[in-house]
Amino acid sequence: MIIVIKPGNEAMVHEISQRFANKADVFTHGNRVAIQGADRDCLSAEELAATQEIIENHPAAIQGSRVFHPEDTVIETAHSLIGGDNFTMMAGPCSVESLAHVRKMAAVAKQGGATVLRGGAFKPRTSPYSFQGLGEPGLKFLRQAADEFGMDVLTEVMDEDHVEMVGKYTDIFQIGARNMQNFSLLKAVGKTNIPVMLKRGMSATVDDILNAAEYIAAGGNEQIMIAERGIRTFDNKYTRNTLDVGSVPVLQKLSHYPVIVDPSHAAGHTEFVTREALAGVAIGASGLVVEIHDDPAHAFSDGAQALKPDEFQAMADKAFAIRSLVKPNQKAEVNA
Amino acid sequence: MIIVIKPGNEAMVHEISQRFANKADVFTHGNRVAIQGADRDCLSAEELAATQEIIENHPAAIQGSRVFHPEDTVIETAHSLIGGDNFTMMAGPCSVESLAHVRKMAAVAKQGGATVLRGGAFKPRTSPYSFQGLGEPGLKFLRQAADEFGMDVLTEVMDEDHVEMVGKYTDIFQIGARNMQNFSLLKAVGKTNIPVMLKRGMSATVDDILNAAEYIAAGGNEQIMIAERGIRTFDNKYTRNTLDVGSVPVLQKLSHYPVIVDPSHAAGHTEFVTREALAGVAIGASGLVVEIHDDPAHAFSDGAQALKPDEFQAMADKAFAIRSLVKPNQKAEVNA
Amino acid sequence: MIIVIKPGNEAMVHEISQRFANKADVFTHGNRVAIQGADRDCLSAEELAATQEIIENHPAAIQGSRVFHPEDTVIETAHSLIGGDNFTMMAGPCSVESLAHVRKMAAVAKQGGATVLRGGAFKPRTSPYSFQGLGEPGLKFLRQAADEFGMDVLTEVMDEDHVEMVGKYTDIFQIGARNMQNFSLLKAVGKTNIPVMLKRGMSATVDDILNAAEYIAAGGNEQIMIAERGIRTFDNKYTRNTLDVGSVPVLQKLSHYPVIVDPSHAAGHTEFVTREALAGVAIGASGLVVEIHDDPAHAFSDGAQALKPDEFQAMADKAFAIRSLVKPNQKAEVNA
Amino acid sequence: MIIVIKPGNEAMVHEISQRFANKADVFTHGNRVAIQGADRDCLSAEELAATQEIIENHPAAIQGSRVFHPEDTVIETAHSLIGGDNFTMMAGPCSVESLAHVRKMAAVAKQGGATVLRGGAFKPRTSPYSFQGLGEPGLKFLRQAADEFGMDVLTEVMDEDHVEMVGKYTDIFQIGARNMQNFSLLKAVGKTNIPVMLKRGMSATVDDILNAAEYIAAGGNEQIMIAERGIRTFDNKYTRNTLDVGSVPVLQKLSHYPVIVDPSHAAGHTEFVTREALAGVAIGASGLVVEIHDDPAHAFSDGAQALKPDEFQAMADKAFAIRSLVKPNQKAEVNA
Repeated sequence: MIIVIKPGNEAMVHEISQRFANKADVFTHGNRVAIQGADRDCLSAEELAATQEIIENHPAAIQGSRVFHPEDTVIETAHSLIGGDNFTMMAGPCSVESLAHVRKMAAVAKQGGATVLRGGAFKPRTSPYSFQGLGEPGLKFLRQAADEFGMDVLTEVMDEDHVEMVGKYTDIFQIGARNMQNFSLLKAVGKTNIPVMLKRGMSATVDDILNAAEYIAAGGNEQIMIAERGIRTFDNKYTRNTLDVGSVPVLQKLSHYPVIVDPSHAAGHTEFVTREALAGVAIGASGLVVEIHDDPAHAFSDGAQALKPDEFQAMADKAFAIRSLVKPNQKAEVNA
Repeated sequence: MIIVIKPGNEAMVHEISQRFANKADVFTHGNRVAIQGADRDCLSAEELAATQEIIENHPAAIQGSRVFHPEDTVIETAHSLIGGDNFTMMAGPCSVESLAHVRKMAAVAKQGGATVLRGGAFKPRTSPYSFQGLGEPGLKFLRQAADEFGMDVLTEVMDEDHVEMVGKYTDIFQIGARNMQNFSLLKAVGKTNIPVMLKRGMSATVDDILNAAEYIAAGGNEQIMIAERGIRTFDNKYTRNTLDVGSVPVLQKLSHYPVIVDPSHAAGHTEFVTREALAGVAIGASGLVVEIHDDPAHAFSDGAQALKPDEFQAMADKAFAIRSLVKPNQKAEVNA
Repeated sequence: MIIVIKPGNEAMVHEISQRFANKADVFTHGNRVAIQGADRDCLSAEELAATQEIIENHPAAIQGSRVFHPEDTVIETAHSLIGGDNFTMMAGPCSVESLAHVRKMAAVAKQGGATVLRGGAFKPRTSPYSFQGLGEPGLKFLRQAADEFGMDVLTEVMDEDHVEMVGKYTDIFQIGARNMQNFSLLKAVGKTNIPVMLKRGMSATVDDILNAAEYIAAGGNEQIMIAERGIRTFDNKYTRNTLDVGSVPVLQKLSHYPVIVDPSHAAGHTEFVTREALAGVAIGASGLVVEIHDDPAHAFSDGAQALKPDEFQAMADKAFAIRSLVKPNQKAEVNA
Repeated sequence: MIIVIKPGNEAMVHEISQRFANKADVFTHGNRVAIQGADRDCLSAEELAATQEIIENHPAAIQGSRVFHPEDTVIETAHSLIGGDNFTMMAGPCSVESLAHVRKMAAVAKQGGATVLRGGAFKPRTSPYSFQGLGEPGLKFLRQAADEFGMDVLTEVMDEDHVEMVGKYTDIFQIGARNMQNFSLLKAVGKTNIPVMLKRGMSATVDDILNAAEYIAAGGNEQIMIAERGIRTFDNKYTRNTLDVGSVPVLQKLSHYPVIVDPSHAAGHTEFVTREALAGVAIGASGLVVEIHDDPAHAFSDGAQALKPDEFQAMADKAFAIRSLVKPNQKAEVNA
């Protein structure tokens, strides 16, 4: 249940949570206390007297839900505010290829308004014989490029054992779609204080995503954002996946986490990336994460879906313009 | 194959098509002749001499393809231009309920910028015991309301035997998602000269839609538009269907038909309709078809997905604003 | 609601149904009366006194449900019993190609234990330029071959206007997957007294099928069987569709209609047809409908999925053997 | 490419593989050498002279493919032979609950013909607040019960860091559906010499499964079996997943790994488990893995899909009977 404490009784939030701490999963948020598996009968007369409302019908993913945490989560990193009325552009190459290349891409990303530089150093490839990423050296290149341009780093961690090491370089962990229900990995990033972008699994329902996010929150890390990157449906002849734009307002209604759209993996082909990106902005996503490359034909991975610098710039301009129509109260981003 | 005739040899278009007329399905468009099942060896030396290019690798749905018909189809009705650089708003109640009600809805639709009034008089309901529509009297109400407000009528025809009768009242036939592969019905509307909106079936691939449209074109009716209205996927807990916005640019690349987005059947719940509509506009659809109702709780059908008048007006304003960002060269619509 | 009348009060079944006949959809079965949209409060004290049980929570597709009609439907044709403890083999070519050919295939089918000869004279093809079937002459060939070998005819009707004509030749109408929700066609066959095999649509849920069947039953025709022929999922690289064997016991639990498995359209490739057929038998289907051809490479349609005569014979032998393990109380078929 | 060496030139298998060992991924099987990324031009005249055939068009998952490894893989554990003409029954509780309980279940499993005892000690639960398994103590109970009844242990490993520890107790690792593309975990079990059951992901295509299996094989562990446990489709109202029986013969054609059917997770409801199990046997699976419980209503997890002891016994009897019809040349299992 979720207990909403009456104004003026805030001390009771602490008291109740202490009383149940060893018996159940207990979480607090403002004047709310969530106690897993308990019900009204567990409360004393004094506790009930201090209670404004008891919500017994709540989602399993309680910490992620609006009933527990009504206001938007806004994640603050060195160079970005993510969520709420903010709009955040994230861009970079699919794989980190070299220091020179990732610096070049960082310049392009920054020019287009991005405050987050994405890039993969550990790559989850369908085949074990495909390029698996540069590893830690790639992370160093990425960090250096981001620092030079005053940007945050977003990069994938695939492995519980790498969480500490990757955490030294990144501002935001990415959990890839294939690992969305790798619960050991979710628990591991849940124990850090680094923000996490959780990508939706190919056939994950909205409830599945929110339960996966809850594994991170259960560990104490509430700085979570969700990325819609296309789902698997019956038709993938012309696009790589099916961008489920409709999931964006659904996720925003049910949860307080920022929702980011990844048009690159959804479309899978450059010619459709910009248009899917704009659809994501128009439906109200809190940001975009986009793959860019100056020479897609020779990209180490996923070149077919990378926007060239000029294409990215044109897309970004339209994206910001549409955003200002859709959310006219958008705050300026932090660009330290 | 498709034969592209050299400039200055236009007479050859007619000659070749005449020569094959009794042996194969033959279609012409500008300086192009399509002959089903024939190949280069079927042409005489004289014919080859007049030929600029022969395209043997073309889609089965040849008339709908850009290789046969490179420029956009623009459909002209009394009050609307649909396709090309135009943007068309279509709105109305799910079911025609009464003359008074459909007039009221027509006023709302018109006010929001709609030039097409939609409304169902024959309803394809999942259960035989649900309301099946007012039938021909409903069509009369719809026609009268549209005429009063200077709008076009869009209404569903479910049945080969009704094509003639429905055709007396409507400016555009709607073929519903469940009938997308009702080939007898497609052939029947293909023999008329009334424009057709073909709604995508719940699990129809892009190729399936284009082949279905080809049944209409094969009968001689080329005034076809395609409506994306959400597909069936593994998650329909929070939305009725999954709006496949990504199919819009794919269809526009492969075919010359206008593509319309129906956010009402995709979202299924009012709270998500506006945002899905805007995604449809941002991705470049040629128009929207939206359900509206002044008293959704008492609508004869699908009230849960109807926008109220003020919601529709607000949505339409944003939709036109986004359209002007996405396609700045949009022409004004005909509003006779 | 469904009213179950107490033993000894059977006259009340007629009385109640008469009383509601003009006000609602009313159906009777044995000692049960179903009244759409009515509830307990509509009954008089006398009616309530004669009532053993009132079921208010029933499926929309009431006539097809076990709560209304608890025992299996068994369809009796001239040469077959379909449903209940019977097992029925149905086989034949995809398309009727000629009298000689369909006679040859009838001999093969009969030899393998089939009592129903299938064959298409009207073909719902994805492309309008593909072979569309021989039409009425094909029906004559099919009828003649079936009569010669003492078999029933099963053939598709695609079109309301053809119901009467096709009905002259066939013992069982087939409604194809693409027409599963062509409600006008369902209503038309519902008004005949000819059994109907309703094929599941590519993305039809179990509830969708039962509601579609209800359109037939609502017209008065209760001789309905359902065919599972594979659904559309995210993987169709190696099979044409995904055989949803699990739907067979689900349909049998919810409804009383015989459920037939079509392994040919599910598998799409000969090499997998036999094994999918045996899975269908093992899970308890009431029969199989299988495509056969002596020269698949030159079949007019769907040759890739046709079993050759010896393959069919071997499959049929195993199918009957598995059936006798799964349902040891199987009755012998009628082979007049 | 795959190089097939001529009979009498077997030494060349070793020579070629040595020559490429440091330049590419190289694998050998019998008289075949697979070299990733190489082609015919990389071979010397002498090597070509010893070559019978070069296969350049092979799947990415080369080690799992029949073109590289034509004959069936047969996995031999202490008490079971899995694959080839063998049929293996695997059963046990979803979760290990106590020593007493798992012993009781082992007795039931053994009685029904099972040689493998399944049970979960680490449970991948959708919600972080659900029971997560007994951990290592559960593994000890499971091992003790299996040893007492002369059975093999099958249990899930969720985590790279647990591979060594779980490996002390189990005869077969299970990789769960949610971890099918947890490549770090796949690599980790690939470095052991313990057989692995890889469960198909909810939306994994056949190619995806084979590529995932290749991650295990690439590490040197070729003792792999694949489990079909139902996929996610548009209809899960009555069954938990959709059993894709058709994938069984497809996987068996493309790869040499044993394919096991899990009817429990597919059906999700006891009443359908037996029938899905029999469909799995009839289509030719090499075994079944089934959940059993003597008191399903109080099971720690997934009670709704557990067969009771008598239901399991009845299912197993039918399964073995159908198997003997489908594969009459089945060998007796090892029951040491």
